[in-house]
Amino acid sequence: MIIIMQSHATEAEVQAVVTKIESAGLTTNISRGTERTIIGAIGNERELPHESLLASPGVDDVMRIVKPYKIVAREWHEENTLITVKDITIGGDEIQIIAGPCSVETQAQMDLAAQNVAEAGCRLMRGGAFKPRTSPYAFQGKGVEGLEIFRQAADKQNLPIVTELMDVRQLDSFLEHGVDIIQIGTRNMQNFDLLKEVGKIHIPIILKRGLCSTISEWLMSAEYIAAGGNHNIILCERGVRSFETAYRNMLDVTAIPVLKKETHLPVIVDPSHAGGKAALVPALSKAAIAAGADGLLVEVHPNPCEAWCDADQALSPLDIKTLMAELKLIAQAVGRKI
Amino acid sequence: MIIIMQSHATEAEVQAVVTKIESAGLTTNISRGTERTIIGAIGNERELPHESLLASPGVDDVMRIVKPYKIVAREWHEENTLITVKDITIGGDEIQIIAGPCSVETQAQMDLAAQNVAEAGCRLMRGGAFKPRTSPYAFQGKGVEGLEIFRQAADKQNLPIVTELMDVRQLDSFLEHGVDIIQIGTRNMQNFDLLKEVGKIHIPIILKRGLCSTISEWLMSAEYIAAGGNHNIILCERGVRSFETAYRNMLDVTAIPVLKKETHLPVIVDPSHAGGKAALVPALSKAAIAAGADGLLVEVHPNPCEAWCDADQALSPLDIKTLMAELKLIAQAVGRKI
Amino acid sequence: MIIIMQSHATEAEVQAVVTKIESAGLTTNISRGTERTIIGAIGNERELPHESLLASPGVDDVMRIVKPYKIVAREWHEENTLITVKDITIGGDEIQIIAGPCSVETQAQMDLAAQNVAEAGCRLMRGGAFKPRTSPYAFQGKGVEGLEIFRQAADKQNLPIVTELMDVRQLDSFLEHGVDIIQIGTRNMQNFDLLKEVGKIHIPIILKRGLCSTISEWLMSAEYIAAGGNHNIILCERGVRSFETAYRNMLDVTAIPVLKKETHLPVIVDPSHAGGKAALVPALSKAAIAAGADGLLVEVHPNPCEAWCDADQALSPLDIKTLMAELKLIAQAVGRKI
Amino acid sequence: MIIIMQSHATEAEVQAVVTKIESAGLTTNISRGTERTIIGAIGNERELPHESLLASPGVDDVMRIVKPYKIVAREWHEENTLITVKDITIGGDEIQIIAGPCSVETQAQMDLAAQNVAEAGCRLMRGGAFKPRTSPYAFQGKGVEGLEIFRQAADKQNLPIVTELMDVRQLDSFLEHGVDIIQIGTRNMQNFDLLKEVGKIHIPIILKRGLCSTISEWLMSAEYIAAGGNHNIILCERGVRSFETAYRNMLDVTAIPVLKKETHLPVIVDPSHAGGKAALVPALSKAAIAAGADGLLVEVHPNPCEAWCDADQALSPLDIKTLMAELKLIAQAVGRKI
Repeated sequence: MIIIMQSHATEAEVQAVVTKIESAGLTTNISRGTERTIIGAIGNERELPHESLLASPGVDDVMRIVKPYKIVAREWHEENTLITVKDITIGGDEIQIIAGPCSVETQAQMDLAAQNVAEAGCRLMRGGAFKPRTSPYAFQGKGVEGLEIFRQAADKQNLPIVTELMDVRQLDSFLEHGVDIIQIGTRNMQNFDLLKEVGKIHIPIILKRGLCSTISEWLMSAEYIAAGGNHNIILCERGVRSFETAYRNMLDVTAIPVLKKETHLPVIVDPSHAGGKAALVPALSKAAIAAGADGLLVEVHPNPCEAWCDADQALSPLDIKTLMAELKLIAQAVGRKI
Repeated sequence: MIIIMQSHATEAEVQAVVTKIESAGLTTNISRGTERTIIGAIGNERELPHESLLASPGVDDVMRIVKPYKIVAREWHEENTLITVKDITIGGDEIQIIAGPCSVETQAQMDLAAQNVAEAGCRLMRGGAFKPRTSPYAFQGKGVEGLEIFRQAADKQNLPIVTELMDVRQLDSFLEHGVDIIQIGTRNMQNFDLLKEVGKIHIPIILKRGLCSTISEWLMSAEYIAAGGNHNIILCERGVRSFETAYRNMLDVTAIPVLKKETHLPVIVDPSHAGGKAALVPALSKAAIAAGADGLLVEVHPNPCEAWCDADQALSPLDIKTLMAELKLIAQAVGRKI
Repeated sequence: MIIIMQSHATEAEVQAVVTKIESAGLTTNISRGTERTIIGAIGNERELPHESLLASPGVDDVMRIVKPYKIVAREWHEENTLITVKDITIGGDEIQIIAGPCSVETQAQMDLAAQNVAEAGCRLMRGGAFKPRTSPYAFQGKGVEGLEIFRQAADKQNLPIVTELMDVRQLDSFLEHGVDIIQIGTRNMQNFDLLKEVGKIHIPIILKRGLCSTISEWLMSAEYIAAGGNHNIILCERGVRSFETAYRNMLDVTAIPVLKKETHLPVIVDPSHAGGKAALVPALSKAAIAAGADGLLVEVHPNPCEAWCDADQALSPLDIKTLMAELKLIAQAVGRKI
Repeated sequence: MIIIMQSHATEAEVQAVVTKIESAGLTTNISRGTERTIIGAIGNERELPHESLLASPGVDDVMRIVKPYKIVAREWHEENTLITVKDITIGGDEIQIIAGPCSVETQAQMDLAAQNVAEAGCRLMRGGAFKPRTSPYAFQGKGVEGLEIFRQAADKQNLPIVTELMDVRQLDSFLEHGVDIIQIGTRNMQNFDLLKEVGKIHIPIILKRGLCSTISEWLMSAEYIAAGGNHNIILCERGVRSFETAYRNMLDVTAIPVLKKETHLPVIVDPSHAGGKAALVPALSKAAIAAGADGLLVEVHPNPCEAWCDADQALSPLDIKTLMAELKLIAQAVGRKI
């Protein structure tokens, strides 16, 4: 950690900072420049009281040198983490396209959706039983009944299932229904109590990025899960909030190479929630794979116009087949396969 | 609701939209312009399937005419909502300054803090027992023990208490300790299951704005609580995320007059978390009161430099006294009192 | 245009709006809903005084139905615009990679850079003679002398040149030195007097997006140029400002498919200024081409470490060769060539 | 400047950085921590090649210690700058409200506007002769004729005039008409050639903040003007772009105390362009003065509904009188006068 003193800081103020650092077990290096005095703290800076140093008299700024996350950092674990779910590996050479409807509606809809997903060549299925909706008056999901419908539909096609957990009280149902991958949604990225709970189990977690979370905050949320013991974490970029109103959210494609450098965890992209329009999904999907994503989370519905939620962003069964063919070519172009 | 057809939409596509609207029980008004055909839906547009209309062939855009919230809208409830906690009214002529430390540390610290708060003339006290922290390695709060310490300290000064609820499983403890106002924090503004739970009780709720939530989304979260039956809701603006790096968050002062027009609920401001620096608190506090806020939520610590969290943003006991004197003048200037 | 009246608007207020619309030569369609009265204006809404309607008593909101731009809109010109510069076409099947250093430094540097660019297989060269720098104390470019150096270096390799125009007073020098494509930079996207000047000539213009300009504003700036008579406009996405601090700007990859739908103009991407780091350029370049971009604007320097500006974002001669090979594969995967 | 080496940086890479720093005339301080080696550069860091250091092998990050601006920094000039225009002082105890219409329309309109402004007690007048409009088809201002009309109208009331300069070629006309304060608008905040030109004269400049400019970039633009010799600079906060759609721009009230600490220049606020609605102007004006602003730039029109531009954001003659009375009370509450 580097402590930058104000230009008029007194010698006593400098010494008070040094004492604070040394009492935390670190040593110091003082550099007296022409305009400022700068104090370097040598040792494990995670032990230092950052805010208290910032509040000390005479201190202008405090800069961290090391990253605040450790378990999820590539600096401490160089090889890519591979996550395997029933013979399917996420984070390896093979790119995984996880497809399915926004929400579980009926058994017939889910059976048909599962068939569409399998026929398109996707190896995992997504679907929502508990739905986070902006309005209390909107359809809130089928709940536990939805989990059952989903499980049955997916089993017929031998597809592992991905579904969103919104509340710690639902976790037992998720375990009972053998949910293969648990999704923590955008609005819960910093629901720390929920993160702690999924840190205690060993089911893989898809951790979606918050709507305006920095990459650093997102990795800290992953660190919450990892610190609990669950290292099976998949990061999912899904667009961030911006000033642009021509589409829903801004897909942060730059986050993909930045995450690949910062962490060993797999990175996937949700082009459906990012763009918010089915017509944008192909371009965003291709961009994500070209930029190095390990997979996609795509909304597909047997009959998009009749979907109970997000109707305008779901691909049709034909759309997903066409897209899969296009993505195979992009995957090859970057030396991978689908 | 207004449905704008694409410029090349066919008559059949127009009719399909009309059929969809009419089957939801509304009537239509068709306006054939020089460039586009526009369909107006007449009736309760909250009954219409917005997303499904948007996904219909030939549709270019769908615009809502009425606000998605109802109980919290001033349009349906013209008088200001007044919330009374032990003789203290929030939302009336009197402006309430809620002060206290970021987190409960020890009984001695809280006793002293309560004394500081009361001496400065503040009538309610804040303090955190459960703390949402970005890092899993940071101090997470004293938990239930903290509630007990807080209750005792505040009771000695006869101050009602405000503290943050992060998880539904903590609610029973909050009720046992007689928490007077429950705060739902920024990161939980769209934790819908938590909102539903606090909608079932009648304790007043301070609902903080999400870090990049629109005013409309924020009011929809308030509507979640209200729809459950709890209309005692106080909105708290606490700064939003922006591109600016010179300070922590950007206080959205414009939200104050906009909320005053849109809703009848009281609006308060947290200048401490917004600016992130004690030195910015006086200017932001004065701006908030001048713009029409009904109160403030301010961090005060008996000894800021030694605070266990957010040390650099807490006011000292002397600071809060000085600020209260300044705020009284601003309150008078806008025809109110403190 | 649709005018939404306030819920308590009087009949006289409705009539006043109708009169305003009719006096502008349009007709009206009045729809009296359960909660609001809505007035549709039928005819050329570009003739209507939008702001004056919004200011009329009883009006709640005014919504535009048609896009404010016309010449650049695909709605009015369905085929892609192809721009040809000395046998090289931008906007067609062939993707163009425009490469070169941030700034012109010396004849030797530019000669070597031109050789690097040509050897890598790029067909156009970029370089800055006039430099917009945030600091008045930073190197401001070689000016007219730089144009001369650039012209000579590029001519030896038969490369058309792209360079930035910052001030109308420099335009004559640009014409004298036969600049093949004039770049209007991010900071000048809404320098309307400059846009009007380049609207009077016929040299192709690369119009970079402003740092927080919406797609609609950007197209309106293109419309400024087009309205003057110059339809040879290339749009360049270069990253927008966001809250993220892990890299410089956020590349808006979604803008590519949105622009392809909205306009017939070619769209290119500048991955160097977006990411701000050479290490991010390959991933962003591949994403851009996969999403449908017609070309790239890439910083390449014979010796990046010694570059006089933006040293950390320039590719080396070897980097650009490697990237070109990778991009050829992506181009093929999307049915195009480089 | 502090150079943070990568964790695996070699000794040779460390030495290369040291050599680069020393060859620029500075000395170094090397601190070898447990995880990283850090190099401090001692001396005038403005002489160091920031980007080139960042591009050096083995370097992870480079942090500046001193601010990039100097003439405008309070660190080097502690007293407030006072700017006097015909007996009126900006930046002193007296707060200045600069009022007037968005654009010059006719002599009658401006005569009436000047009378309204003077009668309300405002001491300076604003008005636009050259208008930056997003659309090429919108009214572009009356140009030089507008300057003449404005000058005549203001002279009758003895009001100094403030008007916007968009292009260097208009500067002579501005001098001829004796414009008292020249405004550089939001879209030209980084039009560096224009900044250099107004740096050569001695007329006070109002420099508006760019739509998404950081405070640091804004001060760098002020430094451009100051570096040319013109130190009469007034900073004008006018709202920044955000994700919020409930109003036009987000007034950054926090910028006021931050600027007051960082610079000695006067700071004013434009509440009209920020909120974009006349109804929001009073609350934003009061907030600005309460937060420490030295003045306001407010749109007032004799007949807002008929204004040729920004009709919905102008105050009426009665509105401005009422507002002035309210602002006097706020000014007193913060120990100033209007």
